[in-house]
Amino acid sequence: MNFLSPKLGFSLIAGLLLSSPCFAQINAIKVEPESWWAGMHNSQLQLLVYGENISQFEVKLLHSTGIKLVKVDASQSQHHLFIDLDLTHAKPQTLTLGLYDKDELVQEIEYPILARQKNAQHRQGFNNKDVIYLITPDRFVNGDPDNDSHPDMLEKANRNDKDGRHGGDILGIRKALPYLKDLGVTQLWINPLLENNQRQYSYHGYSTTNFYKIDPRFGSNAEYKALVEEARHFGIGIIKDVIVNHMGSGHHWMAGDNSLGFPTSTWINGQSNWLQDHKNIAYTSHRRTTVQDPYAVASDTAEFENGWFTDTMPDLNQRDPHLATYLIQNSIWWVEYAGLSGIREDTYSYADKAFLAKWSQAIMAEYPQFNIVGEEWSANPITVSYWQAGKINKDGYQSYSPSMMDFPLYEKIISSLNEKEDWGSGLINLYEMLANDVVYASPTQLVLFEGNHDTNRLFSLLNEDIALYKMAMAYVLTSNRIPQIFYGSEVLMTSPTKDRNDGAVRADFPGGWQGDTVNVFDKHNLSTEQLDALNFTRTLLQYRQQSAAITSGELKHFAPKNGVYVQFRQAENELLMIIYNKNDQPIELDLQRFNQIIHHANQAKDILTSNIYELDSPLKLTQKGVTILSLSR
Amino acid sequence: MNFLSPKLGFSLIAGLLLSSPCFAQINAIKVEPESWWAGMHNSQLQLLVYGENISQFEVKLLHSTGIKLVKVDASQSQHHLFIDLDLTHAKPQTLTLGLYDKDELVQEIEYPILARQKNAQHRQGFNNKDVIYLITPDRFVNGDPDNDSHPDMLEKANRNDKDGRHGGDILGIRKALPYLKDLGVTQLWINPLLENNQRQYSYHGYSTTNFYKIDPRFGSNAEYKALVEEARHFGIGIIKDVIVNHMGSGHHWMAGDNSLGFPTSTWINGQSNWLQDHKNIAYTSHRRTTVQDPYAVASDTAEFENGWFTDTMPDLNQRDPHLATYLIQNSIWWVEYAGLSGIREDTYSYADKAFLAKWSQAIMAEYPQFNIVGEEWSANPITVSYWQAGKINKDGYQSYSPSMMDFPLYEKIISSLNEKEDWGSGLINLYEMLANDVVYASPTQLVLFEGNHDTNRLFSLLNEDIALYKMAMAYVLTSNRIPQIFYGSEVLMTSPTKDRNDGAVRADFPGGWQGDTVNVFDKHNLSTEQLDALNFTRTLLQYRQQSAAITSGELKHFAPKNGVYVQFRQAENELLMIIYNKNDQPIELDLQRFNQIIHHANQAKDILTSNIYELDSPLKLTQKGVTILSLSR
Repeated sequence: MNFLSPKLGFSLIAGLLLSSPCFAQINAIKVEPESWWAGMHNSQLQLLVYGENISQFEVKLLHSTGIKLVKVDASQSQHHLFIDLDLTHAKPQTLTLGLYDKDELVQEIEYPILARQKNAQHRQGFNNKDVIYLITPDRFVNGDPDNDSHPDMLEKANRNDKDGRHGGDILGIRKALPYLKDLGVTQLWINPLLENNQRQYSYHGYSTTNFYKIDPRFGSNAEYKALVEEARHFGIGIIKDVIVNHMGSGHHWMAGDNSLGFPTSTWINGQSNWLQDHKNIAYTSHRRTTVQDPYAVASDTAEFENGWFTDTMPDLNQRDPHLATYLIQNSIWWVEYAGLSGIREDTYSYADKAFLAKWSQAIMAEYPQFNIVGEEWSANPITVSYWQAGKINKDGYQSYSPSMMDFPLYEKIISSLNEKEDWGSGLINLYEMLANDVVYASPTQLVLFEGNHDTNRLFSLLNEDIALYKMAMAYVLTSNRIPQIFYGSEVLMTSPTKDRNDGAVRADFPGGWQGDTVNVFDKHNLSTEQLDALNFTRTLLQYRQQSAAITSGELKHFAPKNGVYVQFRQAENELLMIIYNKNDQPIELDLQRFNQIIHHANQAKDILTSNIYELDSPLKLTQKGVTILSLSR
Repeated sequence: MNFLSPKLGFSLIAGLLLSSPCFAQINAIKVEPESWWAGMHNSQLQLLVYGENISQFEVKLLHSTGIKLVKVDASQSQHHLFIDLDLTHAKPQTLTLGLYDKDELVQEIEYPILARQKNAQHRQGFNNKDVIYLITPDRFVNGDPDNDSHPDMLEKANRNDKDGRHGGDILGIRKALPYLKDLGVTQLWINPLLENNQRQYSYHGYSTTNFYKIDPRFGSNAEYKALVEEARHFGIGIIKDVIVNHMGSGHHWMAGDNSLGFPTSTWINGQSNWLQDHKNIAYTSHRRTTVQDPYAVASDTAEFENGWFTDTMPDLNQRDPHLATYLIQNSIWWVEYAGLSGIREDTYSYADKAFLAKWSQAIMAEYPQFNIVGEEWSANPITVSYWQAGKINKDGYQSYSPSMMDFPLYEKIISSLNEKEDWGSGLINLYEMLANDVVYASPTQLVLFEGNHDTNRLFSLLNEDIALYKMAMAYVLTSNRIPQIFYGSEVLMTSPTKDRNDGAVRADFPGGWQGDTVNVFDKHNLSTEQLDALNFTRTLLQYRQQSAAITSGELKHFAPKNGVYVQFRQAENELLMIIYNKNDQPIELDLQRFNQIIHHANQAKDILTSNIYELDSPLKLTQKGVTILSLSR
């Protein structure tokens, strides 16, 4: 093996095509991932190399240090090679691979092995100290109107179409960082930013057409990385929205002028059927219990896991070991490249479950303090709990995703606030839902939200009742969970409430576009109620940041009585009493019942109004709403 | 210790009062339990001895063999003694205790230690091979009209009062045994038969006023024992309805001319308050999650556990160690005395949970193959699963009750049959509920029912739709559970469907009273629909008895599609296909989907109609209902 001094500092976006000898050269060679790092926990790397008829060539390692060429698999496809490298003893360098036709070197491929950022493996994932703010990037802030459309991208901007692209982008998020910091947000979950080069309905980002490239209408890979770095200065981490279940039908694997086809014969589910007839698609049943149900039949499980969402979202077959490696490396690549603090994994249970375990295990092995939150959209805690790391499942299944989205508790917040208070309805159902925490391995590691891009808007779901809205926000933000809010909830963004209303739910954030008459950033034209909500949310978020009781304290709660539900959060030197009151008329709350927690505290400060209460007499609650008291002696 | 040959064969109903010397004799000494047995697993016995001012006497063991007097506790009450005996080396005998005033023998108490029935400890509890038939004894058959009222009992018979006593009795059940055997029933759960000497509303039996005596309006202890013996000849076991949570306010502990008061100062919850003021009663909150909820406060748990149901049902304090022993011994006494095959424990979670563990552990230690089924009336499998033996609970709680009533699945049967078939409603909810079986330690050990004395009548809840009724009955009777039906369901007994309708739900069984115009026993005046239902139930029960597929086979099921839900039960040489079809119009069911289970079977016999189907073409289902096919090659 030849020695070649590593060409550090020479930035390589993708595997580079070098000068070649006289023999027929391949027109466009592409390597994924485009780079890797020395010193990763998993020292094995598998390169996917694309090139017309590339499988006919022999591959040799030309220049490298401490790297072994373990295996070359040219058997999967005429136009693809899988090259396994062992980087156990690799230092940062640029290695060179040679493609040979018999003994003739046809082409060289340079590939960068980079140095890791200091402490990259010890990055801290989002946790209970954080508040996550979910952004639908096309709809948040249009920082660069010049990139709203792009010559290479099929769908052009059209802000008049609720399902079209509106122009929001990475630069817009960067511009909003001071606002978000001031609001008290510490993590951004941004809906997918990867290229979605679909003909239409591409703004949501869930139809990936390039797993290694930010959509140019949002920005570039470098701009994404710059966002992460800048956000870090604001104390804000970035959570990537990852989809391993499916991709977009516009991916070059599927079609297009330069398509080399699929890297293997089992890359997507139903691949051979689809290749014969593009209409021959089996759709998912959405029956999510079939992967947990001890009595389910294999065909029902397969129908759920292997079916496509829509004909524009081909379902990836993670049982294909090459695809599995591709997806795992892709997730790790983005964490390492951009410097992420978390992953939100879309449509969690729809992917192959053995793969999901491998995927989450591989990521957590690279970054032991990282965090992953999966989306399992079920109101049943049993169903959701199956997927959380640490759960002892009856079928032996082990996940490694530390967190899951808490859909059961979210749905109960909405329904119990809307229900009339009665013996068996209203807040009692929210109270009783928490007893189900016993089915989770780590209930406090769940992400609880007041809404997301798929749910109708909180304020609307609560009949635009500001008191109920504040109860919901307070519940989420003082819960023993990792809280997540949705952009615009802080200013009461609305939507219809029946069925799905994606276009309306993901409306443009007021002030994100030049000329917006309402502007949250400079508080222009916000209604009194919007200002009240914004102030409420901000106060709570800011308070939360310094509250050990909320971020790490114990939770105790009292069964709701007479329309009042009381929770306590308690840390060593801090005791918070959170009172949810659904009575329209003024009431007096006898504090005797709470003595076992209150003990010797005799004074309380309302953290929202700064009012002081003496605790030697019943508490006067004048109106429906939430009261958060900090108790002291 | 003197030797005295045991007086075997001398039947003793209660501790006997013998001749006494000159000193002041106590008028009425009573001992509970009234007898015990040699050779029990637990060799410790605690006698509760009642007598006016009895605590002033010293107790000595006068005549006995191999028995140790371990301890006498006279400190609990002036009129009660607790006497602990060690029977480790005891043979059957009559032992004699002496009450001494200083050195003077005042009185002798003879106490029988009996011989156990052969293999008493190996009795087989009810299990998956059984079908349980629930009888409300006052409302089933009036075998002896002479005992409808009784001079010592406050409430007299009044069949015109839906909440009054109607006269059904043990003799009535004995008379019905041939009918029950023919129906295919193998276990009877009989609502409580113990004395309920309450002024009114006593027929249901849940207000015990004597823990060791059958209510004379039902019969006697001896008649109860005779029922068990006779039932055994019909292949039918008897399950006792046990209530450890509360008793009746008419118990002599509470009041009455001859009351000696409570045996201890903590016998019932709220005892001192109640003694001061009979109106000073704290009622249960019925908030059952408070005993499982990791965030519940102690006062909420106490309110649930310690509160009374009503002012006529004083809540027993099982934390009192003497009461705990009393209740445990009482349960075991009835099993041993009468020869029972199971216990159904009422209002399970309302009793002290540490006691419940001790109680169930003690019973199962005496009878390792016995069975106990607890009632936890919650639609949430997590809540119910907490109480089943073998469950690994997060708080470390361990129960020893092998079975629980499956309220979650029962409620889902009713709601899913009533719901319109749609993507998210109807049979799919029944299908998805079974996936929750993973939270149970032993889902197949649960008792699944189509109704009980507290639920409205099945046929009414299903809008008197005979097809839906048959689906529900078939579901229960072919489930991977221990099935239980409610008297009269086999002939479509009805009730209102909103709120509670106890009087109507527990209506008199047609034919149970002389002169009944409708008579199930001789099939007199039954409607065509009733005869159809009776025949359906009988056919299914008879089939079930010889079906390994149903009683021990595997369950597999297919996610409902197009209003059809298919389950398979499979044992080594038997394959059953159970088809629930909610389509009103004729449909054809393509069998391709089921090939993975059907394999090479090519013929099917309908076990209800004996029709034969060939399996090489789609199955024609002509109408809504259930089809049960036995498949063969």
